[in-house]
Amino acid sequence: MKQLVAILSVVLLLVNGVAAQNKTVVFQSDFGLKDGAVSAMKGVAMGVNKDLKLYDLTHEIPAYNIWEAAYRLEQTVPYWPVGTVFVSVVDPGVGSSRKSVVVKTKTGHFIVTPDNGTLTLIAESLGIVERREIDEAVNRRNGSQQSYTFHGRDVYAFTAAKLAAGIITIAQVGKLLPTNEVVKISYQKAAFEGDKLKGNISILDVQYGNVWTNITADLFKKMNVSYGTKLWVKIYHNGIIVFSQHAPYEATFSAVPVGKPLLYFNSLMQVSVALNQESLAGNYHIGSGSEWSIEILKM
Amino acid sequence: MKQLVAILSVVLLLVNGVAAQNKTVVFQSDFGLKDGAVSAMKGVAMGVNKDLKLYDLTHEIPAYNIWEAAYRLEQTVPYWPVGTVFVSVVDPGVGSSRKSVVVKTKTGHFIVTPDNGTLTLIAESLGIVERREIDEAVNRRNGSQQSYTFHGRDVYAFTAAKLAAGIITIAQVGKLLPTNEVVKISYQKAAFEGDKLKGNISILDVQYGNVWTNITADLFKKMNVSYGTKLWVKIYHNGIIVFSQHAPYEATFSAVPVGKPLLYFNSLMQVSVALNQESLAGNYHIGSGSEWSIEILKM
Amino acid sequence: MKQLVAILSVVLLLVNGVAAQNKTVVFQSDFGLKDGAVSAMKGVAMGVNKDLKLYDLTHEIPAYNIWEAAYRLEQTVPYWPVGTVFVSVVDPGVGSSRKSVVVKTKTGHFIVTPDNGTLTLIAESLGIVERREIDEAVNRRNGSQQSYTFHGRDVYAFTAAKLAAGIITIAQVGKLLPTNEVVKISYQKAAFEGDKLKGNISILDVQYGNVWTNITADLFKKMNVSYGTKLWVKIYHNGIIVFSQHAPYEATFSAVPVGKPLLYFNSLMQVSVALNQESLAGNYHIGSGSEWSIEILKM
Repeated sequence: MKQLVAILSVVLLLVNGVAAQNKTVVFQSDFGLKDGAVSAMKGVAMGVNKDLKLYDLTHEIPAYNIWEAAYRLEQTVPYWPVGTVFVSVVDPGVGSSRKSVVVKTKTGHFIVTPDNGTLTLIAESLGIVERREIDEAVNRRNGSQQSYTFHGRDVYAFTAAKLAAGIITIAQVGKLLPTNEVVKISYQKAAFEGDKLKGNISILDVQYGNVWTNITADLFKKMNVSYGTKLWVKIYHNGIIVFSQHAPYEATFSAVPVGKPLLYFNSLMQVSVALNQESLAGNYHIGSGSEWSIEILKM
Repeated sequence: MKQLVAILSVVLLLVNGVAAQNKTVVFQSDFGLKDGAVSAMKGVAMGVNKDLKLYDLTHEIPAYNIWEAAYRLEQTVPYWPVGTVFVSVVDPGVGSSRKSVVVKTKTGHFIVTPDNGTLTLIAESLGIVERREIDEAVNRRNGSQQSYTFHGRDVYAFTAAKLAAGIITIAQVGKLLPTNEVVKISYQKAAFEGDKLKGNISILDVQYGNVWTNITADLFKKMNVSYGTKLWVKIYHNGIIVFSQHAPYEATFSAVPVGKPLLYFNSLMQVSVALNQESLAGNYHIGSGSEWSIEILKM
Repeated sequence: MKQLVAILSVVLLLVNGVAAQNKTVVFQSDFGLKDGAVSAMKGVAMGVNKDLKLYDLTHEIPAYNIWEAAYRLEQTVPYWPVGTVFVSVVDPGVGSSRKSVVVKTKTGHFIVTPDNGTLTLIAESLGIVERREIDEAVNRRNGSQQSYTFHGRDVYAFTAAKLAAGIITIAQVGKLLPTNEVVKISYQKAAFEGDKLKGNISILDVQYGNVWTNITADLFKKMNVSYGTKLWVKIYHNGIIVFSQHAPYEATFSAVPVGKPLLYFNSLMQVSVALNQESLAGNYHIGSGSEWSIEILKM
């Protein structure tokens, strides 16, 4: 009977051992879905371990837009289970000296990526507790050393799959790097300075051309204004002013005439600026990312 | 030996118990694939149960187009195994009084959706045997009550995952609602009235601009016409006529001159209208959905 | 104790038997992702066996572009594990006499497809060791015989799922066909003839309008030229010349003035032609595929 119990334990381990691991990889890139690049990455991951679960964040990051890659990671990573491994490949510097890293967040998520700014926002919000440089001598697809290397497939997807499958631990990724040296893109943090709110344009609500900032509703409350109050909104690109108008703080778009600007809270409870039924971003050529900032003043 | 059999049964149950459940969730929305919204929904589902299989119907439903969501569900649901749970989030009324429901079809499929018309066609074709309102007090992602709620992620994906994983039964979704009160979009049913065929324009064959109706080949046979016979085709938008021309019933496009209209059966064996080598929908600004209808008369 | 071992073996077989099979199906088509076609194919596959892993190559092959389907398969298949089953449905000849086949490559991958040229490049690079015509009397979704058949769903996805799940072997697909009669699209093979390099335009680097050929860097070396050497580049469409200019062989785009042509090696180490900061394909209406060829001569 003892033997039975022992055998049963082994069997249960076989069944549950698999179950006890996350084994999930989530891919993000600027590759689009028109060719075979994303599929090749997943094929390599399946070759590492056929029980992996492979999902996507998005592959429609605009080409080389590291900022947007950083923003999408921050928006999405926290909703996946602890232990999930993310691969983010937006890599304008492929072939340069940028490091290939794996980081672990305080929340227990892993991200495999070129360390080129992709981790900017995650480092601030979730926090990074471990950061290692991928040792390509061991963590690289067999046979991929010759000639052309597609890093997303041969290094990032391959390493992420090994990590997710439990074939390696993060300690086996490669050399430990200081967590406080994660490469960050500098941008205007949300702040209330004197009588002025300052912030960054994190992203556009592309479909409508609305401008979303990183200023939270909580911070905005410090302005102590009520619906209908006019504020002075200034938008800068690399420090040069491209928009400067008065706009009321409102609860609904229809509170202002068609084509006129307003301030409101978007669905993430962040200060946003829009034109009623027109495109603010389109009409004034406003973009998003680290080089875009905003100031909001009382009048 | 009895013990052995008992133990083996338990083990088999562990192996097959999993297998006996469908554990599949299929997502549809109008979110597109450019941001992290779809991925966040899947992350939440994986957090509920890591053995779920997550697939997509489409996320390219035109924004707020409930009719098209209804049409895509009807086209696709029957091809998935019994027990599959669908999540459909096209939700212009988020924040309004529309109910969040889970329905079970006669075929044993489940659909989790705002009850805003998405179920119109499925209710008629597959039939609905149970309809429950999601009780958000219990079926909502932990920690999602504060501030902003993304219903697709925090309520629909979460509830669908619990249901698909067998953590809850449909009875535990919430309050039972009458199945005959499913919210339906009214549209012109296919009918033969006197000498006239009436129907709805269900969808456009977008790539070519052809117009597909809900009139089946069987119903069309009641007109008792043969290839080459000219018929009078009238197309209405909200009851106002936008197209009125004579068009022959033909087997092939090339039976009419370039740019001229014809009636034919599409690949679903439904009556369709097209121009040979031109776009009927484009040239005459014809759309699809509940507000579009068609009449076909003998001349 | 013998019984124990026997039982344990059965149990392990149950657990590992599953694991020992590939069970992966990868789908490619020209269907796009806006409707339910791809989802219906996956639903049918899940209905065959719920433990299958279903992935995508791409569904954005331009409509009816068999050449591009062939190219994407060749690019991607080798990165997936041996035993993976691919479904490729780009099928302008649906309803014609083209055969529905399953082939096995020398590498042990399977491809289920209409035999209309999709296999052209795979046949040459990986090699085909077995080719069978799908017997639709047995390998077709139940209930799909009536009226309209969607072959991608009712025959290809269904057969691929049975094969991937191990329900049938390739021998049970249908009648054996000669491997040397795989339908191939004829195109200009890469060759060095006299003083002339000849090749095909395999694909465009669409985002930038660069022209990629099937001439490898190794073959190019036979020209024995160094950076800066001017060559004469001629591009033909169906044998008619559409581009004829002098262009230097260079390592970087910036070696030539803006708008001027150069020859370089792309990321796959193949000879490519581009304009610095402009679109060669766009400016000169150059496409890709079997009907496009290139000649490179010393001057």
